[in-house]
Amino acid sequence: MNELEEGLKLELDFGKLAAVAATGAQVVPVVLQDADSGEVLFVGYANERALRASLDEGIAVLWSTSRNELWRKGATSGDTLALVEVRVNCEQNSLLYLVRPTTGGACHTKLPSGQARRTCYYRAIGDEGALRPVPGLYE
Amino acid sequence: MNELEEGLKLELDFGKLAAVAATGAQVVPVVLQDADSGEVLFVGYANERALRASLDEGIAVLWSTSRNELWRKGATSGDTLALVEVRVNCEQNSLLYLVRPTTGGACHTKLPSGQARRTCYYRAIGDEGALRPVPGLYE
Repeated sequence: MNELEEGLKLELDFGKLAAVAATGAQVVPVVLQDADSGEVLFVGYANERALRASLDEGIAVLWSTSRNELWRKGATSGDTLALVEVRVNCEQNSLLYLVRPTTGGACHTKLPSGQARRTCYYRAIGDEGALRPVPGLYE
Repeated sequence: MNELEEGLKLELDFGKLAAVAATGAQVVPVVLQDADSGEVLFVGYANERALRASLDEGIAVLWSTSRNELWRKGATSGDTLALVEVRVNCEQNSLLYLVRPTTGGACHTKLPSGQARRTCYYRAIGDEGALRPVPGLYE
């Protein structure tokens, strides 16, 4: 078990944004939301190239801030997200991708059944600051 | 009219994350979602203090990356967001605040009626890369 991903200890990585910026990437945060259920799937990052590729190809494309390359979500896992619409916030410094999952999965972590979780937000902060599984999402 | 906020020209600020990181802030992105409607309201940032204040006070508290201070959403505008739950993503580098708007508004921009918009994502990218109003959200 990957303790950070499956465990119930809150260990937030507050250094992530600084690490992203340190790569020199010119990116905005992107919220990926299921266009039908309204479920928030995950947060990614997009630069101009990723946004352009998303619009051109009709799928969610992001910029991988760990690999520093274009990331067609699902290219490896198969969990492609069809793009329905891209929305922009008031200050034009973030994006909302409304998507339609093609396999039901969106997270790289898996349910005990082996199926990819449909959202990355399967744990909530409970009393005493520990995490607790969200019923129906964690397992 | 503020062209960036109300206009229909796409002018994304890809320098925002680098600017946030340059302040030295140790923050994670936070998606604010209406717990009842599922609508994504906006993306903010939280450091450890903001998260702690949110949980302690039961309202959405963020870290203002422009003012470098704790930001109790609604302290000035009145558009406080009651906190329902905080969820954490797989890699523990972003948060999802499930909230309940107390006034109906969440964006600092306003409808022609003078009421604060309920979400900051009131424009979508249309054909030719121009923005178009989302019906029912822009006005």
